[in-house]
Amino acid sequence: MEETPESTPRKRISESTIHRLSLYFRALSLLEKENYETVSSKELAKREKLTPAQVRKDLSFFGSFGTRGLGYPVTELKARVSRILGIDRVWRVALIGIGNIGSALVSYKEFIKQGFHIVKLFDNDQRKIGSNHKGIIVSDIKNLKTELHEDNIEMVVIAVPATVAQYIVDDVVEANIKAILNFAPINLKVPPDVHVRNENMAMELEYLSFAMVNNHMPKGAGKN
Amino acid sequence: MEETPESTPRKRISESTIHRLSLYFRALSLLEKENYETVSSKELAKREKLTPAQVRKDLSFFGSFGTRGLGYPVTELKARVSRILGIDRVWRVALIGIGNIGSALVSYKEFIKQGFHIVKLFDNDQRKIGSNHKGIIVSDIKNLKTELHEDNIEMVVIAVPATVAQYIVDDVVEANIKAILNFAPINLKVPPDVHVRNENMAMELEYLSFAMVNNHMPKGAGKN
Repeated sequence: MEETPESTPRKRISESTIHRLSLYFRALSLLEKENYETVSSKELAKREKLTPAQVRKDLSFFGSFGTRGLGYPVTELKARVSRILGIDRVWRVALIGIGNIGSALVSYKEFIKQGFHIVKLFDNDQRKIGSNHKGIIVSDIKNLKTELHEDNIEMVVIAVPATVAQYIVDDVVEANIKAILNFAPINLKVPPDVHVRNENMAMELEYLSFAMVNNHMPKGAGKN
Repeated sequence: MEETPESTPRKRISESTIHRLSLYFRALSLLEKENYETVSSKELAKREKLTPAQVRKDLSFFGSFGTRGLGYPVTELKARVSRILGIDRVWRVALIGIGNIGSALVSYKEFIKQGFHIVKLFDNDQRKIGSNHKGIIVSDIKNLKTELHEDNIEMVVIAVPATVAQYIVDDVVEANIKAILNFAPINLKVPPDVHVRNENMAMELEYLSFAMVNNHMPKGAGKN
């Protein structure tokens, strides 16, 4: 008898495909609100400034959804995309660093809307530790490892200065966290099984300055 | 005699290439600080978790820089990349909406480091209008068009609620602004010559949740 491998190797999914799935999810949520029952690849493409061929290719990649002539069923496709993205559930998120960016993220509505619940806050500033931000008491960073573990945190958002980010991430990794969103302007070193995404808002402005000085034609409305 | 076209058609540069240029710029700035005089495509690739072939391809696209065996001259390449990105100069930026995100952006060091100077703030809240944020007096949104023009603003950052974003962007477009960074979770409608980039921090968390549920292998340290 032949052995089946535990996990079959899957085709590598590109970063841009994942981002487009996020865009489809948003477009489908809106279509649902507007009471659409079905949507064509053409309409989805138009809303997200992509080509219909791209939309069909992306969606077929995750299994067959559409019916020729009828299009995709909106609610079903939305549910499917949300399952693929892993946002059909709630994620327990800790935020480290309650500075300018950190404070803004505590009340960032897009996180909660997509199921990312910030349930823990950490800082090293004695004036902040123990204070209440949107119903969460700020914990002392020195208890980071224990509390991440005890509170079953699954994702961490880093919003600390670049100078201390690596030091903090080392603790986060030791606490067995596998997903990190990093706002510190530094390339963090993590083991190969830990996912890190870097967010640097200046890079979006650089895209705009590039476009302006090179007279680059906008591709519709840019990133989304 | 043949006529030469005003602007020769250039090869289309992808979004990801522009983003990689931003990454190279950051790596080169660091290399310069570390007193490197030259850098190989291999080292640049390693720092940004790309392949050396990708680095060579990207850089050759913008002209020949490297010398076989010697690598690229760090300072010269950094200056060149910064020119290509249009960040070898200062950009006058206005920020609209002094809420959670907006307030954080006023003090966001990465903007100023790359030459994006927020010099105007706008809000519609009477309690905020006239107040001082980091040395800038908040203007009344009702004077938006006039003041954007009078103050020679070149880029606008939108950090207002989704419900009013399109209304505000229409005014921004009428004020002849061609570059907009949008934090409102909505697809803005703009004329084809206006560049819009959308920033939605939840999308980065969706990338992480996708990776977690699909057991997706991280490609080094993700986006940057």
